[in-house]
Amino acid sequence: AARCQQIVEAPLFNQVIIGMILVNALAVGLETSIWVMERFGTALGVVNQLVLTAFILEAAIKITSHGSRPWRYFASGWNCFDFTIIALSLIPATGPLATLARLVRILRVLRLVSAFPELRTLVDTLLRSLPSMMHIAILMGIIFYIYGVAGYFLFHEIDPTHWRNLPIALLSLFRIVTFEDWTDIMYTAMDAMPWAWLYFVSFVVMGAFVMINLFIGVVLNNLEE
Amino acid sequence: AARCQQIVEAPLFNQVIIGMILVNALAVGLETSIWVMERFGTALGVVNQLVLTAFILEAAIKITSHGSRPWRYFASGWNCFDFTIIALSLIPATGPLATLARLVRILRVLRLVSAFPELRTLVDTLLRSLPSMMHIAILMGIIFYIYGVAGYFLFHEIDPTHWRNLPIALLSLFRIVTFEDWTDIMYTAMDAMPWAWLYFVSFVVMGAFVMINLFIGVVLNNLEE
Amino acid sequence: AARCQQIVEAPLFNQVIIGMILVNALAVGLETSIWVMERFGTALGVVNQLVLTAFILEAAIKITSHGSRPWRYFASGWNCFDFTIIALSLIPATGPLATLARLVRILRVLRLVSAFPELRTLVDTLLRSLPSMMHIAILMGIIFYIYGVAGYFLFHEIDPTHWRNLPIALLSLFRIVTFEDWTDIMYTAMDAMPWAWLYFVSFVVMGAFVMINLFIGVVLNNLEE
Amino acid sequence: AARCQQIVEAPLFNQVIIGMILVNALAVGLETSIWVMERFGTALGVVNQLVLTAFILEAAIKITSHGSRPWRYFASGWNCFDFTIIALSLIPATGPLATLARLVRILRVLRLVSAFPELRTLVDTLLRSLPSMMHIAILMGIIFYIYGVAGYFLFHEIDPTHWRNLPIALLSLFRIVTFEDWTDIMYTAMDAMPWAWLYFVSFVVMGAFVMINLFIGVVLNNLEE
Ligand code: NA
Ligand code: NA
Repeated sequence: AARCQQIVEAPLFNQVIIGMILVNALAVGLETSIWVMERFGTALGVVNQLVLTAFILEAAIKITSHGSRPWRYFASGWNCFDFTIIALSLIPATGPLATLARLVRILRVLRLVSAFPELRTLVDTLLRSLPSMMHIAILMGIIFYIYGVAGYFLFHEIDPTHWRNLPIALLSLFRIVTFEDWTDIMYTAMDAMPWAWLYFVSFVVMGAFVMINLFIGVVLNNLEE
Repeated sequence: AARCQQIVEAPLFNQVIIGMILVNALAVGLETSIWVMERFGTALGVVNQLVLTAFILEAAIKITSHGSRPWRYFASGWNCFDFTIIALSLIPATGPLATLARLVRILRVLRLVSAFPELRTLVDTLLRSLPSMMHIAILMGIIFYIYGVAGYFLFHEIDPTHWRNLPIALLSLFRIVTFEDWTDIMYTAMDAMPWAWLYFVSFVVMGAFVMINLFIGVVLNNLEE
Repeated sequence: AARCQQIVEAPLFNQVIIGMILVNALAVGLETSIWVMERFGTALGVVNQLVLTAFILEAAIKITSHGSRPWRYFASGWNCFDFTIIALSLIPATGPLATLARLVRILRVLRLVSAFPELRTLVDTLLRSLPSMMHIAILMGIIFYIYGVAGYFLFHEIDPTHWRNLPIALLSLFRIVTFEDWTDIMYTAMDAMPWAWLYFVSFVVMGAFVMINLFIGVVLNNLEE
Repeated sequence: AARCQQIVEAPLFNQVIIGMILVNALAVGLETSIWVMERFGTALGVVNQLVLTAFILEAAIKITSHGSRPWRYFASGWNCFDFTIIALSLIPATGPLATLARLVRILRVLRLVSAFPELRTLVDTLLRSLPSMMHIAILMGIIFYIYGVAGYFLFHEIDPTHWRNLPIALLSLFRIVTFEDWTDIMYTAMDAMPWAWLYFVSFVVMGAFVMINLFIGVVLNNLEE
């Protein structure tokens, strides 16, 4: 355990891990090239196994370094994060979960965030400011829910593409809140109900207003810290 | 009256009401599912009656709790809000007002805001900052009105879809201020009047500028408090 | 002159003027309705003449009120603004300048801003913060000019709709800076020059960045005051 | 050398240079007009040669003015900037590099920024605030990379237009982060994978959130200084 702690504290240890994450990131990127896959596909597979082994070793050493209290490894949220990604990496790359296994391999690039203290701090700051905005997020949720259900009842017969059920209606509302071609949806609804603009304009004003409050609130919270 | 006041002040009372609002919210959401409606449609109808009865009872108890001065119930804006929603819920769900009755039932989800003190405070803050932005809103209104009337006169023959009357012209201007496919409207106008870009670019610059002032002003006002 | 000054300082004077401006605004709005124009077209013409006479009288009284130094009327920017609008109102409503005459009549609604001290202050504040942002506006202008000329040379043969000459190229750049269907223009260019994305992405990043700086700078400047 | 320093420090020197840059900017703009090119094409070519000669002379004088330590000219980033543009201007305007030569001539307009101290300060401020935002930019890069690779694997068969390789996938993600018709891409993907909205909505929320953080951070940094 003491030796493991020495290893963990050696600067080289972290550097090797960062190197492995970068190799993994590069490999994952190269796999998007058909040209590379035809020539070096098996080599990339080997790299993948190697990186995975290195990550498992790293987690094992880190856990051992806590000696008789291995559970203290999980006291750090970032360790839990690393562990989850490594555990998910053991999903077999073939069979029904092949797509998921591939996505997990890509998600391993996220370990870059946990490997660099500066990025870790940044994400910590971003996440820490979320709770203070929880009330406004709940308010947003209530507005979305009300408009979603109302939108379903008002428009699901006129425009099933955008309002055929509650999840699709909520997706359409999210689209409207980003101002993305929201008038197309409105004009379709107005053809059948001329006063439908009331629904859309009120939602755009209220949604955009609360959303901007939410975003700017979080941003300013972060800048203060 | 004293007993009513005891009831109102009991924590359980508010919890039961919140539970009722959540049940109502869930019921309203489930009604968007055809599958659920076929199987549990009548059950949801019963739930709806139950929730409405509970809400009426709640309002009655709260009004009675003020003893010989029942009008003090209406001193709180949020009580007025609750009362209005409950009163509107008595609209019959069949006949010409069926759609309105359904919308009111959805609007009852808004009672979530009045039930949680934190959300009530948040909305109070948002609303309280509106008056300080009234002047800039009036300015925006004047700009919209001038551009709306001018847009009608300049473009109503070229592009009746977007400028056929003043309300539609104002709606098109609102669309332009959200940057939503505004160039489509401009190009149509420019085909007939090559200098029409002056109208649109000046409105985009001025409208977006004043609108951003309006929004950011309200947001910063809220954050200060 | 002294009597004129008394008149100008009487609260009633300003109220009558505001009333006239509102009547003008209403008349201008009613003229967009074909139904109203068919029935009350001549009445609205009379109202228009009346309002114009009232405005001329107002300017005359205000100028006279300065006694032997009538030019002091023009010391106030808002008086110049009013005077210009009234002078332009004398353009005959028939003949080659008919459209301009109509637009001027609509612009008279802007006098609402000069009639209310609060709005006047607001616009003064907005305008006063513009000079401090002049340098960033010049920088924006240089970026637009360079990208405009470069866009003309690179794309005017591939996509004449958006790049056929410098003014149209600048208009397309303005459109891109509002994120309005900018990828449509980019994809057209990329079909012929695969690396054209460099031009567009760099402009979007730089343009949006400088533009946001410009806007937020003005907004924060205003809020400080 | 001493005489060169005198020349450089004379107000006239900088004014002549600014004049030359403006002449160059005007010439470059006039070249976009076919009408002008047909009549004054050769004259503009002469102007171009003249301006280039003046710029070379300017650089020579400035370098000489440092006497026995000419390398001190390059101590200023703006001098390096000027020198690079002038050096690139020597690319022959005919042959394979003709387009590049033309672009460099347009880029010479950028020298306006280096000629005016106020603009130089502004750009210095903008650039100086970039490093402080480096961490959030790296975070953004990681998010883009992960979503880009994941997008390629998930959608490259369904929607090759937007996801056929990693660069194109990153370009599509950049488009999504500007909210530009992002739902078109999403709906195409959802036709084959109904849960694809998870990918898009999460990216829009996260991407927009981090991007806004990045932008507003830089803006506020600049305003503080
Ligand atoms: Na858009
Ligand atoms: Na759009």
